[in-house]
Amino acid sequence: MNLPSSPALQAFLEQCQQRVESALTTHLSNEVRSERLSAAMQYATLKGGKRIRPVLAYASILAIGDELKHADTAACAVELIHCYSLVHDDLPAMDNDDFRRGIPAVHKAYDEATAILTGDALQSLAFQVIANCSTDAISSNVRLRMVTILSEAAGAQGMVAGQELDSTAVGKQLELAQLEIMHSLKTGALIKASVQLGALSSPAVTDEQFQALSRYAENIGLAFQIQDDILDVTGNTDTLGKPRGSDQSQNKPTYVSLLGLGAARAKATELSERAVAALEPLTQSADELRWLAQFIVKRVH
Amino acid sequence: MNLPSSPALQAFLEQCQQRVESALTTHLSNEVRSERLSAAMQYATLKGGKRIRPVLAYASILAIGDELKHADTAACAVELIHCYSLVHDDLPAMDNDDFRRGIPAVHKAYDEATAILTGDALQSLAFQVIANCSTDAISSNVRLRMVTILSEAAGAQGMVAGQELDSTAVGKQLELAQLEIMHSLKTGALIKASVQLGALSSPAVTDEQFQALSRYAENIGLAFQIQDDILDVTGNTDTLGKPRGSDQSQNKPTYVSLLGLGAARAKATELSERAVAALEPLTQSADELRWLAQFIVKRVH
Repeated sequence: MNLPSSPALQAFLEQCQQRVESALTTHLSNEVRSERLSAAMQYATLKGGKRIRPVLAYASILAIGDELKHADTAACAVELIHCYSLVHDDLPAMDNDDFRRGIPAVHKAYDEATAILTGDALQSLAFQVIANCSTDAISSNVRLRMVTILSEAAGAQGMVAGQELDSTAVGKQLELAQLEIMHSLKTGALIKASVQLGALSSPAVTDEQFQALSRYAENIGLAFQIQDDILDVTGNTDTLGKPRGSDQSQNKPTYVSLLGLGAARAKATELSERAVAALEPLTQSADELRWLAQFIVKRVH
Repeated sequence: MNLPSSPALQAFLEQCQQRVESALTTHLSNEVRSERLSAAMQYATLKGGKRIRPVLAYASILAIGDELKHADTAACAVELIHCYSLVHDDLPAMDNDDFRRGIPAVHKAYDEATAILTGDALQSLAFQVIANCSTDAISSNVRLRMVTILSEAAGAQGMVAGQELDSTAVGKQLELAQLEIMHSLKTGALIKASVQLGALSSPAVTDEQFQALSRYAENIGLAFQIQDDILDVTGNTDTLGKPRGSDQSQNKPTYVSLLGLGAARAKATELSERAVAALEPLTQSADELRWLAQFIVKRVH
C-alpha cells in the first residue's frame, strides 16, 4: 500500500475541516428567532472538534472520483447530528459531563433547557440541510435516500438506541457481543451513514462501490470506538478535552475493561486492516480512506 | 355557512384519530434495537391525545378533494414531532410537568435520560416516515418539500425557537406583540405545517389553495393557543389531564394575563372567523376545516 505522505494528508484533513466549518457557518446563520438559541447552536457546532464524520464523507466522495464540494451537504448533515448528540449526551441526566472539547458543555455555558432545545434544533437542521440543498448534482431521489439513511442512523434503529443501551449498561457486566452491538449502534451507525452520504453525493457511485464503502465504514466505526476506550485509559486530559478515566469512574463497560489493553489494541488494528481490505474494489482514489483507517487507531485524542 | 352536523363531524374526528393511530402503530413497530426505548416511544405516542394536527392534515387533503389515506404520512409525521416536543417540554429542566394526558410523563414513567432519547428518536422518525413513505401519489420533489417545511416548523425557525423564547419569558413582562411572536413559533408553526403537509399530500393542490390554507392555519394556530391559555384558567384538571393554573403558578405571561378573560375570548373568536374567511377560495370540501376553526375555540380540553 503506497499511501500519500503525512503532510499531504494533513493538508487534506485541514481542507475538509475548513470546508465543513464554512458550510456549517452558512447554515447556522439562517434566521433563528431566538438570539440565545442561535448563539447556543453556534457554540455547540463551531467550537472545534475533529470533524471525523465530515472528513469521512469527503474522503468517500474522493474515492468515487468526484469533487469535494459536492459532499458539503452530506458533511454538514452528519456533523449536525453528531453535535446534537454530544449536547444531549453531556446533559446531567445523561453522561453529566460539564466539559466538552475543553470548554464548558452547552448546559453549563447556557442552561439545561437551552441545551435540550439546541440539540433538538440541530437535529431538525440536519434534515433541512439535505432537503433544501441546491446542489443540482444530487437528485431528489438520492436526497430522500440520504434523509432515510441519516434518520435511521440517528434514531431508534441507530445512535439513539445505542445511547439507551449504553445508559442502561452503567454498572452492569456486558458480554463482548452486547458491547459490540451497543457501539455499532451508538457510534458505528452514524460513521457508516457519513461514508454512505458522502458516496451518494456523487451520481457516479456504483452499487459495488457503495457496498465496499459500507463494509469499510462498519470496520472503522468499531475501531474508532475501541480507540476511544483505549484513550479513556491512556489519554491525556488536556488533549482529550475531558477528564481521563471518565468511563472507568462511571463504571461503564469498555473494550479495555473486557479485553484488557493489549487485546483491545490488537482488535483495533485488526479492524483497521479489515477496513482497508474492504476497499479492494476501489482504486488509488480511496487512499485518503485507507490512511484514515490507520489514523483512527493511531490518534491520541 | 351550512356546516355538517355534529355527529357527522364527530365521526370524522374519530376516523382521523383511528387512521393516525393505526399509521403510528405501524411505524412504531419498526425494529428498535432497545426494548426500553421502543416501549417509551410507544408510551409517548399511543396513549391518547387529541390528534389536532393529524386531523388538520386530513381535513386539508379533503379540502383539496383528495382521499384521506393519502395524508397518512403527513398526519403521522406532524404528530411524531408534536409528541417528541411534549416529551422534552415535560422534562424537569423545561416545564417540569410530571403528568401528561392524565398519566405520568415519560421522564416519570421511565427516567430523564430515556425521555430525552425518546424525544430525539421520535424526531428522527418523523423525517424517516416522510422520506421512506411508499405512497406513489407523493412525488420525490414534494416529499423533499415536506421535509423542508417540517424541519423549519420544528426547528430553530419555528417550534424550538418559540420554546426557547417561552422558557426565557417565565417571570417576565411581555408585550402582546412579543407573546404573539412566541406563540406563532411555539404552536403556530407546526399547526401551519400540518395543514400544508396535508394539502401537499394531494398532487391536485394549486398554489392559490395552498396559500388560502396557510392563511387559515396562521389564524387557527393563534386561536388554538389563546384557547389553551383560557383553559388553563377556566378548565377542569380532570379533562385537561394536567393541573389547572399551571401557567399562572409558573408565572408565565399568557393572553389571559395580558388581555383579561373577556378580551382573550373575543380575540380567539375573531381569529376563528378570520380563518374561515381565508377559506373563501375553497368549496364545500373545506367544511371540515371550517368546523374545526369553530371547534378549536369552543373545546374544553
